[in-house]
Amino acid sequence: MTTHRRKAGTRTPAETAASLAKSAAVRSGPSVGGREARRWLAEQRRRTVMDVRQIPLDRLTGWHTDPATGDLVHASGRFFAIAGLDVQRPGTPVPSWQQPVIEQPEVGVLGILVREFDGVLHCLMQAKAEPGNCNRVQLSPTVQATRSNYTRVHEGASVPYLEFFRRPSRHRVLADVRQSEQGSWFHGKRNRNMVVQVDEDVAVLDGFRWFTLREIHELFAVDDAVNMDTRTVLSCLPYVGPRLPEVLGTGRDPFTSALLRSCSGLEGGRHGMTEILSWITDERTRTVNEARRVPLKEVAHWQRRDGRITHASGLFFNVIGVSVTADGREVAAWSQPLLEPCDEGVAAFLAKPVDGVLHVLVHARAEPGFTDVVELGPTVQCTPSNYAVLPPAARPPFLDEVLHAEAGRVRFDAVHSEEGGRLYHARNRYVVVETPEDFEPDHCGYRWLTLAQLSRLLRHSNYVNVQARSLVACLYSMTA
Amino acid sequence: MTTHRRKAGTRTPAETAASLAKSAAVRSGPSVGGREARRWLAEQRRRTVMDVRQIPLDRLTGWHTDPATGDLVHASGRFFAIAGLDVQRPGTPVPSWQQPVIEQPEVGVLGILVREFDGVLHCLMQAKAEPGNCNRVQLSPTVQATRSNYTRVHEGASVPYLEFFRRPSRHRVLADVRQSEQGSWFHGKRNRNMVVQVDEDVAVLDGFRWFTLREIHELFAVDDAVNMDTRTVLSCLPYVGPRLPEVLGTGRDPFTSALLRSCSGLEGGRHGMTEILSWITDERTRTVNEARRVPLKEVAHWQRRDGRITHASGLFFNVIGVSVTADGREVAAWSQPLLEPCDEGVAAFLAKPVDGVLHVLVHARAEPGFTDVVELGPTVQCTPSNYAVLPPAARPPFLDEVLHAEAGRVRFDAVHSEEGGRLYHARNRYVVVETPEDFEPDHCGYRWLTLAQLSRLLRHSNYVNVQARSLVACLYSMTA
Repeated sequence: MTTHRRKAGTRTPAETAASLAKSAAVRSGPSVGGREARRWLAEQRRRTVMDVRQIPLDRLTGWHTDPATGDLVHASGRFFAIAGLDVQRPGTPVPSWQQPVIEQPEVGVLGILVREFDGVLHCLMQAKAEPGNCNRVQLSPTVQATRSNYTRVHEGASVPYLEFFRRPSRHRVLADVRQSEQGSWFHGKRNRNMVVQVDEDVAVLDGFRWFTLREIHELFAVDDAVNMDTRTVLSCLPYVGPRLPEVLGTGRDPFTSALLRSCSGLEGGRHGMTEILSWITDERTRTVNEARRVPLKEVAHWQRRDGRITHASGLFFNVIGVSVTADGREVAAWSQPLLEPCDEGVAAFLAKPVDGVLHVLVHARAEPGFTDVVELGPTVQCTPSNYAVLPPAARPPFLDEVLHAEAGRVRFDAVHSEEGGRLYHARNRYVVVETPEDFEPDHCGYRWLTLAQLSRLLRHSNYVNVQARSLVACLYSMTA
Repeated sequence: MTTHRRKAGTRTPAETAASLAKSAAVRSGPSVGGREARRWLAEQRRRTVMDVRQIPLDRLTGWHTDPATGDLVHASGRFFAIAGLDVQRPGTPVPSWQQPVIEQPEVGVLGILVREFDGVLHCLMQAKAEPGNCNRVQLSPTVQATRSNYTRVHEGASVPYLEFFRRPSRHRVLADVRQSEQGSWFHGKRNRNMVVQVDEDVAVLDGFRWFTLREIHELFAVDDAVNMDTRTVLSCLPYVGPRLPEVLGTGRDPFTSALLRSCSGLEGGRHGMTEILSWITDERTRTVNEARRVPLKEVAHWQRRDGRITHASGLFFNVIGVSVTADGREVAAWSQPLLEPCDEGVAAFLAKPVDGVLHVLVHARAEPGFTDVVELGPTVQCTPSNYAVLPPAARPPFLDEVLHAEAGRVRFDAVHSEEGGRLYHARNRYVVVETPEDFEPDHCGYRWLTLAQLSRLLRHSNYVNVQARSLVACLYSMTA
């Protein structure tokens, strides 16, 4: 039955946005506030046992090196593989290169279950341990499931709460969209970002807790507390809307006021939506970004030695092996490869008010793993130390504006972790720097967008990359 | 300079929609109306010299058969190729097959230039001859250019008016979106559908003429008059909007009234947009639609004999060669392969009012050539005679409802041609059949959508397939 009538209890978009805003503003309710949330997360961290040890890649259990290609693959043929990628980008400072890449073509589920208590929306969040996390446990969505997870390839325990996301049309869906992950490290990976609202009682299992948006938002200021999957799912919420200022007020300072106006106006902004979509079409048509799978053993300048894969320069990233012993996960012990970046990255928006409405400067970025050539990324997204071996022309525009911004212009600054199931200690400094209103750079490939415009794009796949989505979630966290 | 301020003369979406509605309603102006438009097209047809002769594939000039793969390729390595495709679709009535396919990964431009005369928007249309057209000349967009065209691979004359579409950000863009073509015949092909508005005088070359939307709309009732590229570009226009009834009235009969309400309401409808997007995400996640290039000479059940490629059953389509002599085109004589369907197809919407708003029943279709698994197609899209050799379970739902609909319920019925540059005499009967309001089929993979909702999806790539886009344009043609 797919052609049923509209479900009872359906909300208009404005009602949904108002309900989300109320959850971001609330100071009372069954959950007591930011301090209590931090205490709960710290307690979960203490109680979680996960031991992660680096081991050589050739000692991973269940994984082997394909003799024909040199690719690292799992015995089941599932999960993911470490393969090689050849990238052609003619006419750019680095016109071609080869690299290892994480190949995971399956679409997984990142789902947050929400429910109202006393009229306030709460999110069911999980304190989840991942082998690549620098602090073991971070705040995670209700469900993080690969397709292998939910088809039970690993024969472990079933994923709790997954049933709410398998048949979303039975519930009230607030967001449901496939989004990309790091296009420099993953080839064609997409996860389904979902937020599903229920009215019924839901049993809260050990390691889970209901959070208001306000509580989650307060944790954004803490380093390494809110994991990447939570950030990307929250960025896909229909949080913006004309009723936001009714609930959240007009802002305690000019920056917050401009931010709130940026979140509340569905039209308006420097460019209209038709113009923005045309610009994206143009960038996607004119950019050549060809990525082709090649055998890992043929990838130039990368070597497998001492049980790990590294670049000849010692830069970029390594592929390492880890052996994991855990309690309370689907399986109690396993080993796997992880991608370990060699240094911390930066992801930053330059932001400024235009006629009192905050705009962020987005960059039309080509990353080799993207499925549709170009996505909108932060103004700056890079690992600064990598540029030691690259031509000077490759140095990203605006990097110095971000790294040397005067303290009074830095509106957001926190270090957050990337996905801990495939990446090892991958961290980015997320920064929002306010520029004067007359700052008008004339670089190709950049545009000023409002948050309402980014939010409209985020209803669809593949417009906004994962680092920009994290920054959108960071900005949402500053609205209350 | 890409971060310039908003252009002078920018219109709001509502103003643009009102201007389009006015062009659809107008009965006067420099162009005199439907009868005059038909006379002009007939005159152009008489004046056009194009001689098309079938020749064996091995006698095509500039084309050869790759000895390793059997693929038909052009000597330049450009234009397009005829290759093989292996399709896997487990769990469906036809779980796998192989077929020849047109491989044309470049993004071409289909562009209509528009300009206001006496406050009424006009489209610069072309009477264009294509070798595959059954009647030589049809009404075409201002520009139809492959990338090979505009990079001048064929060393022919340059494409007139192309400069307006190369730098769209200099003009007022009404639509600019890459859309798919027939996923059963093309592998990953996308064209950029563009509508660009100018204020300046534009010289009208021989074979071109300014048309109001009303004149084009009247030609939709004539078989084989409005070519596929025109239909798809018009479907991408932001035609719907709340001011449509102000300009076009409320409709002369209940069907037209429901159609106008379907075009005017940006919210409302059986399902909300979030629910529709979630449904599409779900279909795309759960459907397996794997298409892989294989050498043409290894494609099972297809044979190359007597200078053409045919299926053993004599059904589906043939690949044939043609030799063309033309006047007034980029080059005066050439030869090329074309794909010739063996029979006429049907593309139909079942439509019904829901609370006075017309809804059409769309089908989430997987076609092998799609770049993102599933797009929304018509209720019925098939070549009925092909089902002679396929299992009964493969017979499309609702086909009999369309073929045997009582005359009083058939609201639109015309035969239109598909792309004449790659396809030979490819024709579909486009039909809209009104069903009673209590018609509630419970088939999986179908949903009732309003035209306003389809129009919102059409701002983005790969949501609505080319046959459904033609039907949307047919429905727009019935609004005035």
